[in-house]
Amino acid sequence: MRIDILTLFPEMFRIFDESIIGRAKSKGLFEINAVNIREYTLDKHKSVDDAPYGGGSGMVMTPQPLFDSIAHVKEKNGGKVIFLGPKGRKFDQRLAEELSRENELVFLCGHYEGIDERAYSVIDMEVSIGDFILTGGEMAAIPIIDSILRLLPGVLGKDESSQEESFTEDLLEYPHYTRPEDFRGMKVPEILLSGHHENIRQWRRYMMLKATREKRPDLYRRHVLSRDDQKILKKFEEQK
Amino acid sequence: MRIDILTLFPEMFRIFDESIIGRAKSKGLFEINAVNIREYTLDKHKSVDDAPYGGGSGMVMTPQPLFDSIAHVKEKNGGKVIFLGPKGRKFDQRLAEELSRENELVFLCGHYEGIDERAYSVIDMEVSIGDFILTGGEMAAIPIIDSILRLLPGVLGKDESSQEESFTEDLLEYPHYTRPEDFRGMKVPEILLSGHHENIRQWRRYMMLKATREKRPDLYRRHVLSRDDQKILKKFEEQK
Repeated sequence: MRIDILTLFPEMFRIFDESIIGRAKSKGLFEINAVNIREYTLDKHKSVDDAPYGGGSGMVMTPQPLFDSIAHVKEKNGGKVIFLGPKGRKFDQRLAEELSRENELVFLCGHYEGIDERAYSVIDMEVSIGDFILTGGEMAAIPIIDSILRLLPGVLGKDESSQEESFTEDLLEYPHYTRPEDFRGMKVPEILLSGHHENIRQWRRYMMLKATREKRPDLYRRHVLSRDDQKILKKFEEQK
Repeated sequence: MRIDILTLFPEMFRIFDESIIGRAKSKGLFEINAVNIREYTLDKHKSVDDAPYGGGSGMVMTPQPLFDSIAHVKEKNGGKVIFLGPKGRKFDQRLAEELSRENELVFLCGHYEGIDERAYSVIDMEVSIGDFILTGGEMAAIPIIDSILRLLPGVLGKDESSQEESFTEDLLEYPHYTRPEDFRGMKVPEILLSGHHENIRQWRRYMMLKATREKRPDLYRRHVLSRDDQKILKKFEEQK
């Protein structure tokens, strides 16, 4: 996969030199390239923003540097141009999986009050990470790109192996425990020490169903209970 | 405000040396301090994770370094300990505002398959940015901290001044336009050039209502239409 990022703050994307993604990057599992929009402005003061027509506070990113930086990147990268903005499709695991199957992606990060509306004519998709306001699109691009890259083959090592199922199945994770068995008086549930694989599987599944029902009723309603789920719920709730 | 971040990758938080947040930080408008959890492990190999009880893939963060790094930070920072995790309360603008009124906050970033469940006993709140999986809690902490810090007095300059109203009022933004009036044949809507403030206000309000109704019916249903909104909808929809 090749990712180009159009931003006023290319330095921010050095974050992808760290941790799991940094290791995969140095192995050449993908290419990531941050391009400074300001390098494309034809304004003699190198400006990339201006006051809004119709008045009001805040500055708006002017169309010329946006159009020209997108055109330049598109010469090498034929992928979808994704703008990070509050009106966009809500990013979720399904969209992460969809985008992880692309060979090329371009992310456009806005700043200030927003981008000139005409730039939408060269944007393929607007994506939002949630109903909250950020200082710039970079802050949304970072988790979104992380979430896409970790799905590429070879990116996750064995220590980070994944419970993709969590969100694709609409269920939250079961609780994790590791050594020591007794930590300052707090003990690991006995069932996990039993060595009885089927009991452990059922307990974990029950904990997933229970956590989702309590904490995320919206996800729980979407989840279709299998016969096995129904059996497990019955077993654990009758024990009480 | 003082923010402490417990992480295995403190370098990632150099991102807050950039842009608007970086400028505010250098003015001393808040303190932000990334602490490496690994410095607190008593394990002779400096390990912070171990295999899960009950089997399965992935590694789990052990309780000792989590408890001890939290205890250490809490000596200076009496704020809420917020864990970034998928089971948490969904982060939104209301929660950003709520947390921006605190004097001290501690963010705990997990890695690998998850944290030992017993660490929840020293966590005050779990927060999630959305239904997607990340390589680590850092990727969620970054936009969340950005969104909180930009609300602190003095952080936003005049060029970045804010449309907080967007999400607190449950409406999306109106479209922005700046110079030139005609960009490669694409023109700024005439109303914005009219100089008629009340007409501009009404048009912008209409565009907010229309965008929200089309793109985010969930937000639109939550929005209570004022008398003015009703008048504006009637005016612009009868014009068509």
